[in-house]
Amino acid sequence: METTSTLKITKRDNSKIADVDFNNLAFGSVFTDHMFSVEYVNGQWQQPEIVPYGPISMDPSAKVFHYGQAVFEGMKAFKDDQGDIFLFRPEDNWERINTSSARLAMPELPKEVFMEGLMELLKLDEAWIKAGDGNSLYIRPFHIATQPGVSASPSDRYKFMIILAPAQSYYSGEVSVVFAEKYSRAASGGVGYAKAAGNYAAQFYPTNLAKEEGYQQVIWTDANTHEYLEEAGTMNVFFRVGDKLLTAPTNDTILNGITRKSIIQLAEAAGITVEVRPVAVKEIVEAAQAGELKEIFGVGTAAVVVPFKSFAYKGEDHKLNAPENSYGVQFKKDLNDIQYNRTEDKYGWRVAVK
Amino acid sequence: METTSTLKITKRDNSKIADVDFNNLAFGSVFTDHMFSVEYVNGQWQQPEIVPYGPISMDPSAKVFHYGQAVFEGMKAFKDDQGDIFLFRPEDNWERINTSSARLAMPELPKEVFMEGLMELLKLDEAWIKAGDGNSLYIRPFHIATQPGVSASPSDRYKFMIILAPAQSYYSGEVSVVFAEKYSRAASGGVGYAKAAGNYAAQFYPTNLAKEEGYQQVIWTDANTHEYLEEAGTMNVFFRVGDKLLTAPTNDTILNGITRKSIIQLAEAAGITVEVRPVAVKEIVEAAQAGELKEIFGVGTAAVVVPFKSFAYKGEDHKLNAPENSYGVQFKKDLNDIQYNRTEDKYGWRVAVK
Ligand SMILES: Cc1ncc(COP(=O)(O)O)c(C=O)c1O
Ligand SMILES: Cc1ncc(COP(=O)(O)O)c(C=O)c1O
Repeated sequence: METTSTLKITKRDNSKIADVDFNNLAFGSVFTDHMFSVEYVNGQWQQPEIVPYGPISMDPSAKVFHYGQAVFEGMKAFKDDQGDIFLFRPEDNWERINTSSARLAMPELPKEVFMEGLMELLKLDEAWIKAGDGNSLYIRPFHIATQPGVSASPSDRYKFMIILAPAQSYYSGEVSVVFAEKYSRAASGGVGYAKAAGNYAAQFYPTNLAKEEGYQQVIWTDANTHEYLEEAGTMNVFFRVGDKLLTAPTNDTILNGITRKSIIQLAEAAGITVEVRPVAVKEIVEAAQAGELKEIFGVGTAAVVVPFKSFAYKGEDHKLNAPENSYGVQFKKDLNDIQYNRTEDKYGWRVAVK
Repeated sequence: METTSTLKITKRDNSKIADVDFNNLAFGSVFTDHMFSVEYVNGQWQQPEIVPYGPISMDPSAKVFHYGQAVFEGMKAFKDDQGDIFLFRPEDNWERINTSSARLAMPELPKEVFMEGLMELLKLDEAWIKAGDGNSLYIRPFHIATQPGVSASPSDRYKFMIILAPAQSYYSGEVSVVFAEKYSRAASGGVGYAKAAGNYAAQFYPTNLAKEEGYQQVIWTDANTHEYLEEAGTMNVFFRVGDKLLTAPTNDTILNGITRKSIIQLAEAAGITVEVRPVAVKEIVEAAQAGELKEIFGVGTAAVVVPFKSFAYKGEDHKLNAPENSYGVQFKKDLNDIQYNRTEDKYGWRVAVK
């Protein structure tokens, strides 16, 4: 896990920032001036580099195209009113991409390489981070297999990169979800707990079917029985029944979300009972029928917390009426306050970029 | 499913064929002079092209890198002693890549585009196909998402390509397999039946573990119970118990192999009973113990038929002694005879390239 050399920076001549309308950003579609890149060759990470953002050259037989050896992360940088920049639990993203990489037989990346690359890239493209609630810079570290060759075996060359996309407040509209009854996201014994590229493409078709029926997202259930609720496409999920919060335990089919675990901590600190255990579809339907189901919300880096306005199961829609003291709204505020440096950070989650 | 224009061919100035040692080819590592490529933009397949084989330029945010929208095929071209070239059931590969694409929310490719591109490419790189038993040209059609953008939704741009790699007789050595007890390849309700890139990366780590224990391949079992045998990493599997052949039915976790279905037809024509039904680990272990298990073999395009010399389950190795009248050896010969134009083709499987 050593690299052969230290970071080399090649700057872009003219920033393209003036061309960007920061009030009209489609999520993840505009990228900053620079990108970070480091290659793995001959069993060793090579010279890390920051270069102008631009196309990369790939052999058409590169293993990522054929065998899907690709993992990624999603994180954000925030700017406070003084212009200081902060990350949220970045080491957890570094750890998780290594967990994902290991499951896909890809090499792990040393922490210094990840952190130094990230910090230097953020400092260089600092102007792309706008202050103000909801504004952030979405950070996408990713790791792909680049060895040419069409035999189905692990690559011996890799590329790890970080790219950055300025993001506005993520308003997803009113979100109705449907519980999966037929399709599934992850096999037990499979790669569902890894942030593996292939896990996402696998969801697109069933999600399109759900959209045609008027639902914006699918909440996946276990592939064996479809009786237990797992997670949404890019978010973990919490259910509030009465005053208790329920969420599925992370296992090999569920991504160990950083927002999820932060919210569990915040909830417990606030004296809310959190039950981390398999959540049955049946109990949620029954709680809804009994008027005990107060909230369902998805949690993840991109949107922080998304309240769902209804869920559908076996063709029936169950409406959710946002309660006055919404847990979801409170957690979003709590997290944002830490992220934007508006409050004390009891947990040591905030990391300054400097 | 229309294209805007017909095939455009740009030839390479000098062939690199003289540099290639055809007696020393590592599978899938050397590529021919040209490649076929067609892009999907604005809801339409564009001008198909054949160009010199070489790197492609990709945006680092291209969706294939992040969300694994990528499917592929594997097929072969054979040359007979007269120098004529043949394909084996190529329409089935075209159909299957479209089945795979549909499951990953990717557009289907028109048959004419696939077939014309394939035929013209083969004619152009015809010299790379060597006659002689075991020699062939491995053909890799693949389809990837190219739209830049890191939001988890289907791409609106794609690239479909065909690349070619000369191949020698595939000798895999003695193959010992292990039945999967913990890890799995595919979820029911998932994408196991698609030739999706992500399905392969998911197998690398557990396959590495098997290799460390001295097994070359894993035979995957169902993810729910691990009690039923599904398929190997890149091959379907047949079990011969007494004089009967058993193989798992194709469903949403198993690839519908072209070799598999051809062998089922050959076996039935030869009066062999083929039971296409769930095959329990238990019955195979019991058949082995009773001396009734005669053969297990994997079948697929790359190796045609691979006899396994043993299987392991719950830490116990069960040796298989190749019987005199091996079904596997017979089917391999039958298929090769059709493929190399050495026999009549009763089934209409052989397609001449001209
Ligand atoms: C499948 C999946 N689940 C959950 C999450 C939420 O994880 P985090 O809170 O770390 O962003 C994500 C997104 O990152 C995801 O892709
Ligand atoms: C998972 C899997 N199963 C089975 C096969 C065999 O299919 P075919 O006979 O069409 O090559 C392959 C290879 O193509 C495969 O990748």
